[in-house]
Amino acid sequence: MKILVANPNSSEICTDVIKKSACRKVTDPNTELVFLTNPKGTKNIDCGFADYQSVWSFIRAILKKVDEIHPDAVVLAGFGNVGVFALKEALDIPVLSISETTQTLACLMGHKYTVLTMLKQFIPYQEDLVRLYRLQDKCASVRGINMNVERACSEREETLNQLKEEILKIVEEDGAEVVVLGCAGLCGYDEELQALVGLPVLDPVTVTVKVAEMYVQTGLCHSKKRKFAAPPQPLEDYFWDGNGSGK
Amino acid sequence: MKILVANPNSSEICTDVIKKSACRKVTDPNTELVFLTNPKGTKNIDCGFADYQSVWSFIRAILKKVDEIHPDAVVLAGFGNVGVFALKEALDIPVLSISETTQTLACLMGHKYTVLTMLKQFIPYQEDLVRLYRLQDKCASVRGINMNVERACSEREETLNQLKEEILKIVEEDGAEVVVLGCAGLCGYDEELQALVGLPVLDPVTVTVKVAEMYVQTGLCHSKKRKFAAPPQPLEDYFWDGNGSGK
Amino acid sequence: MKILVANPNSSEICTDVIKKSACRKVTDPNTELVFLTNPKGTKNIDCGFADYQSVWSFIRAILKKVDEIHPDAVVLAGFGNVGVFALKEALDIPVLSISETTQTLACLMGHKYTVLTMLKQFIPYQEDLVRLYRLQDKCASVRGINMNVERACSEREETLNQLKEEILKIVEEDGAEVVVLGCAGLCGYDEELQALVGLPVLDPVTVTVKVAEMYVQTGLCHSKKRKFAAPPQPLEDYFWDGNGSGK
Amino acid sequence: MKILVANPNSSEICTDVIKKSACRKVTDPNTELVFLTNPKGTKNIDCGFADYQSVWSFIRAILKKVDEIHPDAVVLAGFGNVGVFALKEALDIPVLSISETTQTLACLMGHKYTVLTMLKQFIPYQEDLVRLYRLQDKCASVRGINMNVERACSEREETLNQLKEEILKIVEEDGAEVVVLGCAGLCGYDEELQALVGLPVLDPVTVTVKVAEMYVQTGLCHSKKRKFAAPPQPLEDYFWDGNGSGK
Amino acid sequence: MKILVANPNSSEICTDVIKKSACRKVTDPNTELVFLTNPKGTKNIDCGFADYQSVWSFIRAILKKVDEIHPDAVVLAGFGNVGVFALKEALDIPVLSISETTQTLACLMGHKYTVLTMLKQFIPYQEDLVRLYRLQDKCASVRGINMNVERACSEREETLNQLKEEILKIVEEDGAEVVVLGCAGLCGYDEELQALVGLPVLDPVTVTVKVAEMYVQTGLCHSKKRKFAAPPQPLEDYFWDGNGSGK
Amino acid sequence: MKILVANPNSSEICTDVIKKSACRKVTDPNTELVFLTNPKGTKNIDCGFADYQSVWSFIRAILKKVDEIHPDAVVLAGFGNVGVFALKEALDIPVLSISETTQTLACLMGHKYTVLTMLKQFIPYQEDLVRLYRLQDKCASVRGINMNVERACSEREETLNQLKEEILKIVEEDGAEVVVLGCAGLCGYDEELQALVGLPVLDPVTVTVKVAEMYVQTGLCHSKKRKFAAPPQPLEDYFWDGNGSGK
Repeated sequence: MKILVANPNSSEICTDVIKKSACRKVTDPNTELVFLTNPKGTKNIDCGFADYQSVWSFIRAILKKVDEIHPDAVVLAGFGNVGVFALKEALDIPVLSISETTQTLACLMGHKYTVLTMLKQFIPYQEDLVRLYRLQDKCASVRGINMNVERACSEREETLNQLKEEILKIVEEDGAEVVVLGCAGLCGYDEELQALVGLPVLDPVTVTVKVAEMYVQTGLCHSKKRKFAAPPQPLEDYFWDGNGSGK
Repeated sequence: MKILVANPNSSEICTDVIKKSACRKVTDPNTELVFLTNPKGTKNIDCGFADYQSVWSFIRAILKKVDEIHPDAVVLAGFGNVGVFALKEALDIPVLSISETTQTLACLMGHKYTVLTMLKQFIPYQEDLVRLYRLQDKCASVRGINMNVERACSEREETLNQLKEEILKIVEEDGAEVVVLGCAGLCGYDEELQALVGLPVLDPVTVTVKVAEMYVQTGLCHSKKRKFAAPPQPLEDYFWDGNGSGK
Repeated sequence: MKILVANPNSSEICTDVIKKSACRKVTDPNTELVFLTNPKGTKNIDCGFADYQSVWSFIRAILKKVDEIHPDAVVLAGFGNVGVFALKEALDIPVLSISETTQTLACLMGHKYTVLTMLKQFIPYQEDLVRLYRLQDKCASVRGINMNVERACSEREETLNQLKEEILKIVEEDGAEVVVLGCAGLCGYDEELQALVGLPVLDPVTVTVKVAEMYVQTGLCHSKKRKFAAPPQPLEDYFWDGNGSGK
Repeated sequence: MKILVANPNSSEICTDVIKKSACRKVTDPNTELVFLTNPKGTKNIDCGFADYQSVWSFIRAILKKVDEIHPDAVVLAGFGNVGVFALKEALDIPVLSISETTQTLACLMGHKYTVLTMLKQFIPYQEDLVRLYRLQDKCASVRGINMNVERACSEREETLNQLKEEILKIVEEDGAEVVVLGCAGLCGYDEELQALVGLPVLDPVTVTVKVAEMYVQTGLCHSKKRKFAAPPQPLEDYFWDGNGSGK
Repeated sequence: MKILVANPNSSEICTDVIKKSACRKVTDPNTELVFLTNPKGTKNIDCGFADYQSVWSFIRAILKKVDEIHPDAVVLAGFGNVGVFALKEALDIPVLSISETTQTLACLMGHKYTVLTMLKQFIPYQEDLVRLYRLQDKCASVRGINMNVERACSEREETLNQLKEEILKIVEEDGAEVVVLGCAGLCGYDEELQALVGLPVLDPVTVTVKVAEMYVQTGLCHSKKRKFAAPPQPLEDYFWDGNGSGK
Repeated sequence: MKILVANPNSSEICTDVIKKSACRKVTDPNTELVFLTNPKGTKNIDCGFADYQSVWSFIRAILKKVDEIHPDAVVLAGFGNVGVFALKEALDIPVLSISETTQTLACLMGHKYTVLTMLKQFIPYQEDLVRLYRLQDKCASVRGINMNVERACSEREETLNQLKEEILKIVEEDGAEVVVLGCAGLCGYDEELQALVGLPVLDPVTVTVKVAEMYVQTGLCHSKKRKFAAPPQPLEDYFWDGNGSGK
């Protein structure tokens, strides 16, 4: 089985972090992970504006890669909208975004879960996504630590401390008992944090790759009727660039 | 006052329809409407896939035009997401989408309203938008007539009949009493339909241009704190094309 | 165009405050504002009891005035229920209450808005109204400053300080970024406050008069089917006083 | 124990119907029922307009009667808003409206209940009340039979047939299994209907008088903190008539 | 009239507490209360696990007792699920649980109510019940004082103080004004607490026994169509013990 | 890895059906499935009454088996409550019910899903479960075909036809595009049905066993803080039988 794991931004450093999280729990010897970095993506998807400016090319890059390597499933490794519904329309193989999939799984693990993201400014955007997935009754809160991604990568000790403190508030103030790490920059922090706080802390890339593997083994896919029916026009016709179309 | 009315798709015919609806009710002699067609937009935005493939360039075209003509407000004349939240982040002048604005106004006019769109396949997408605006308790239903846009333009008589029949069901079955025309292709049908069915039928372009005018006269704008704060990075940095950035 | 702006209570001082806010942004030289004070209204509408004791005569006074001056729209300038649905039933010209209209408009301006009222005792009443308008998913909170209206009028400096402090809590604790002033006594504070806090602060009278103007220019009105259909009996028959009827 | 049962409209015929339903199940030999007809009420409360035109005087009549006879509880025998929250503010004895009380009790009797009213035009008004009581998740539907009250009184056979047919739809189409008769005109139909359809059919007057009796025996009353705190001004000050006040 | 008041756990001390609360307000000289302790119940129902391990035998004990004494109604005197829906299926006399009934009644007494339980660990379980009853829009919060039941019984002074402090938070932080004591161990604290805090404090056993009495006097019962229809198989067939069946 | 797949009822025929569905998609050569039939379970869990009469012994049988074989996860193979929250409290290995797990997964596959069960009488029970999982915004409907389980097993052709017809209604009337088979008796119908209707049709046993496998491979488990914390008393103390305790 081949799973395409696609990073919506153009940062290779970010793709490397995703790689580590993606591989950690794969057990099927037949599972091959192929990684893709969005060449025209923005450095970081940190607002709704960034989502639109990165995802158009992300979708095109994915479709091109799918034509080349014929994967069995696609994992969208950005914790945002990142075009998950658009790609479910375009493809008839499983498409799983780390944001939608991990939050859906988290529903099974507790009374309520919390999404822990970086910038506080990003909270309303993430709250909109929760409602788009219709999980607002299971999501206790979206919280941010207002630390930038670079620092989160370099100063591990302090980041852990800040995350831990925020997670304790989640339990005391929000009534949640499961944590979803809502940012690729936080990937790989799950196990240390889980040990510190005694709650499930989900690395969204790790979880989603495993769900993708399970989808393929089971033969699951999203419905192609109604919401995710193929776009009414041929796909290439949507790639109009003012002169002519083409991927 | 200058209002930029922007069509997210690349069809000039569609821009012409929008023009007619936009001008109809403008009363302030100082209101100047400037129209923009998205040169790289798809022919028609008829699914979530189309939205992503058209809106990235739509946003760039609008920002460029805003730099040139310094409008007082922007109207997004596509009945979909069309990047309304992304543009509210990017701009500190009023940004009003015909979908969000007309549905919000419709709340004032009845117990419940209905969105009348074309393709039935488009209904779940429109239902997601209703929830994004958090108006699901005022929206009785989204209904489609499954007629294509071209035919809607050419066979007026039959289109009117089909719309009328669907609207009667809205009242009888859905408990609604206000109709929002959810498609640029239906612009200009409002008055005839309203006469036929005896309910308010809202042309979203007409209504939204008037709200934009009112916003400017009153000095209203969306909040620039939290959800619509400016993107964390300089705007140009989001226009990365793999080599370098630029509008 | 003639707009009747009606104060549901009997305080002329209050009508004067309303007048100032109503006129500030009117731009159409053809717009004439006519003001009405409810002669039999209570001094202040500060609870559900007051609403019922003032609104019956308010409705009668408005209907009488409408018969006399034939306005194009009616603005109900009290931040409460003030009979808005009853008057939409009775009239087939636009009826816009400052409470319903301003909160509906605020939906367009941010992720969530907050209503800032005076007495804390009034909060559940205002929360009921939010649900009546079905806007509870857009309203982050209703907050009160527990200062009486007289003092709010006389001690401007301290009122501003208290309002400012409460608004900062709205952002930090409630996740809102738009403020609706929920009391006629707070009219005219909007611009100073907006400068202090950097958020949109809406004067409900100013906003609603402009929406009324826009309604008339566009030809909008509430639906007269179902919810706002004319009362089943002749209007005068509802004005029974135990002996005979009459306005 | 003395219970004041108050009819918000001015029809003595209606008060007679209420009387019959009120007395049917009273078992405590110490329970005395006192009836009041609102002398200035409209003939029938059949819309939001009627509610406001009847309730102001209804409230005054009740307060006057309460001062005279010192009842232990008040039952508001009109299936509408009829000022229930306003009277809970004004009084510190139990105030129970037949609409709020019966629907609340119905929650205990099934998965979902339905309100059966007369005019279809009245449905949105009743739906608003359901939401005001916050029972929308227990109320499957509000349905009307579009028969006028007079005919319902005179043509019993046909009324029963129409009610029965509508109730069957409630089970099949709405997923409800409890019926609340939502109109004083339907009082007294409960037992025959219940026998016909095999579902609980609640006469709201009968049920509410019994709840009032139980309240008094148990020493229950609504909270006088927050929502139903006494109005901020002395009650008489709200009875301003333009010259001076007075009950 | 005979009312069976059944304690789901096996503690006779607890049954004694229930007895006191049950009798306090009964006024009808014809009302006879019969008490039952679940012989195979756990000592205390303090989690979902305990509910399942106690309720199977609770149901059997009740059915047996019902066959013996033919009561007119059954009160389930445990503040949890305690099989209320299962028993409504099995019986066609009124079945009222103290948790569902008291919370439903509390809806009538204020804007919002709060459930006050003992262990904080029990809060999510109680929140699930609130949603099962579909009262989540009326329930402001579930709060716990984390004191064990034994101590609550022995150290009355301190328990009262802790309860009082928690109730003040309910008003200030949660916006509630009615308290439901959510634990049999707190029965009998209602009047003292009510005097201390000035809010209605409901003893669930007292309230529910009175509602049961009222049900019987009025002839009310839950619907036996749909949700509470009799189980599809004969009742005894559900009492399979691996060899043969029997009560 | 060892997964315990437990049938809450006492029918070995049913366990055989479960076995077939459970094994179909297991791919990991290290996955060992162990099956358990509840010796004291009722023949069929077809109402809330049956749930309580079967689950107490189901829980005990599972705990005993867990002590014996030390599985890595437990699958509860009954499409009902079947004590899923109680067992999550008692165990610190993954506990996955086929009802909760399959419905949660279905969220990812379409706009809305439908649960297809057998008896119509069972619908309100299933609707309660949907709300318990807080998935009511993703569940379009619960539908029943009113065929008994035996006949469903023997008359395959007709069952398929009836299921197909019901599923077409799901798409047309309910706006759903994913089907969850809500009954063990329907296990094994998924692939034929999926081919007939062109929508994903989920066999809940197959899906849940695969999720369990994925959980174990990934190291996931439900949170043991708050909702699923271990019961406050030692587990054996809950197994009181009136004389002494014991598994």
